[in-house]
Amino acid sequence: MPNPPTGFDHGLTLDTAQTILRETLAEGRRLGLAPLTVVVLDQAGQLKGLLREDGSSLQRPAIAHGKAFGAIGLGFGGRELARRSQGMPGFMNSYSDLLGGSAVPVPGGVLVRGEGGRILGAVGVSGDASDKDELAAVAGIRAAGLEPDTGD
Amino acid sequence: MPNPPTGFDHGLTLDTAQTILRETLAEGRRLGLAPLTVVVLDQAGQLKGLLREDGSSLQRPAIAHGKAFGAIGLGFGGRELARRSQGMPGFMNSYSDLLGGSAVPVPGGVLVRGEGGRILGAVGVSGDASDKDELAAVAGIRAAGLEPDTGD
Amino acid sequence: MPNPPTGFDHGLTLDTAQTILRETLAEGRRLGLAPLTVVVLDQAGQLKGLLREDGSSLQRPAIAHGKAFGAIGLGFGGRELARRSQGMPGFMNSYSDLLGGSAVPVPGGVLVRGEGGRILGAVGVSGDASDKDELAAVAGIRAAGLEPDTGD
Amino acid sequence: MPNPPTGFDHGLTLDTAQTILRETLAEGRRLGLAPLTVVVLDQAGQLKGLLREDGSSLQRPAIAHGKAFGAIGLGFGGRELARRSQGMPGFMNSYSDLLGGSAVPVPGGVLVRGEGGRILGAVGVSGDASDKDELAAVAGIRAAGLEPDTGD
Repeated sequence: MPNPPTGFDHGLTLDTAQTILRETLAEGRRLGLAPLTVVVLDQAGQLKGLLREDGSSLQRPAIAHGKAFGAIGLGFGGRELARRSQGMPGFMNSYSDLLGGSAVPVPGGVLVRGEGGRILGAVGVSGDASDKDELAAVAGIRAAGLEPDTGD
Repeated sequence: MPNPPTGFDHGLTLDTAQTILRETLAEGRRLGLAPLTVVVLDQAGQLKGLLREDGSSLQRPAIAHGKAFGAIGLGFGGRELARRSQGMPGFMNSYSDLLGGSAVPVPGGVLVRGEGGRILGAVGVSGDASDKDELAAVAGIRAAGLEPDTGD
Repeated sequence: MPNPPTGFDHGLTLDTAQTILRETLAEGRRLGLAPLTVVVLDQAGQLKGLLREDGSSLQRPAIAHGKAFGAIGLGFGGRELARRSQGMPGFMNSYSDLLGGSAVPVPGGVLVRGEGGRILGAVGVSGDASDKDELAAVAGIRAAGLEPDTGD
Repeated sequence: MPNPPTGFDHGLTLDTAQTILRETLAEGRRLGLAPLTVVVLDQAGQLKGLLREDGSSLQRPAIAHGKAFGAIGLGFGGRELARRSQGMPGFMNSYSDLLGGSAVPVPGGVLVRGEGGRILGAVGVSGDASDKDELAAVAGIRAAGLEPDTGD
């Protein structure tokens, strides 16, 4: 018997999050990437799931979180954050401060969009080069039948 | 023409929040309370609205926020947080730390419940004695046709 | 019967703040801007009011606060903070740290000036491009019969 | 072809962590507990995995992390931390501060011990009463063939 609804179900179910986690890591293995850490945040910006592969270095969870958290906080994918970090470094520095340091403005923070383009959550991946981290996140989101938004 | 849905509509509309803000302060005036500050958080725990009455002291916004934020973070009204603060002071001290200090375990942090008991947000009031702050929050939530949960 | 004066009436009444909040959002709708969050701080730099429109992303309250708080903290509008962020990035980084991260040096942080140019408070807006956020703040302040200072 | 060893394999493989995550939640369902969040930390105290069940409230990830992080930081299970919090509240308050707030001294933070009693990591669970959270963690660790240490 499932628990009654609490109101704390923001956009993504745990089932969907687990598909994204698993398929993001599977794509990393297919592409031969370095060991990855993947984070899934829900629509409220809260952690829904995280997995760190064996060998993934110590601060990868923090970096992957910062990619996803920075993206969903503004409502843009990581590539848009990277552009703003180039064009408005003062803004992105203060944005990172506002988020307690957890806003990493590089590719690999990817919004999860559902029906009608609604933002359902965000995925952050860290471990290899940012572009490759992003490929893994995109594959994971697509495997769950949802639309990745990289900010491109 | 309204904006298209973004996914950042968590439980409470701004219209509902404004009703709660206005009616909470109106109740404070009816009861002759000291100047109040009222905060409304949405289901994601983010600020939806805040009003500080003339004469309400400097840290009332922070205190009202902490009452609401602490309540919705655990999913209990402020009276339950107050009980735990008595019975498990070590837990509540660390909980406050976890929330960057913004968890105030006293009455006046009130969950907003909708259909089927779902948590839609939280209201925090500070300015008079905690019990009276709570009366104002309860009246504000009821005026919006929603159910207050004080943790009692 | 109103409460007696407490000394915590810093420049802006709640009535004035509510006019600014309402008219800032109204201007955003007239201009067709993305969903906005607007913050009004009083002369003491404390929150007087905040409203977040439906669909405004998660960290907009923090960003809008940082625009207004950074501006009133130095006594310059956001455009002057943006110039200093370009010319003296080290200073603005440390200024942001000093304010616990809440100093966002971009347009959209606007001082509220009254008779004789006295600073009465500050308004911060976030949601669309910074220049457009600023237009909404300027309209809101003017609607209250006060003088906006963008730092230009 | 697996990645070469990096040195960042601290005690627990991702396979083991996933067994613990899955079986902790399964035990929660068997016991009819409220929606849980479970965190697995490795021997270095870093996140290896996290899952938050649908309906688990907003700050459960932070609380579950604090239970596990506080436990492995001292090398004692959560029950010992709870005892010290009673007997030495000043110490536990400063310990929580030292860990950036992430030390929650209650049951439900459980060390994972392997051969010869070596500490391999820690599990934190939050969502129901602390005693019940602990039951789920213990079952998850045992299902991975490892020894739970609750601090009892």
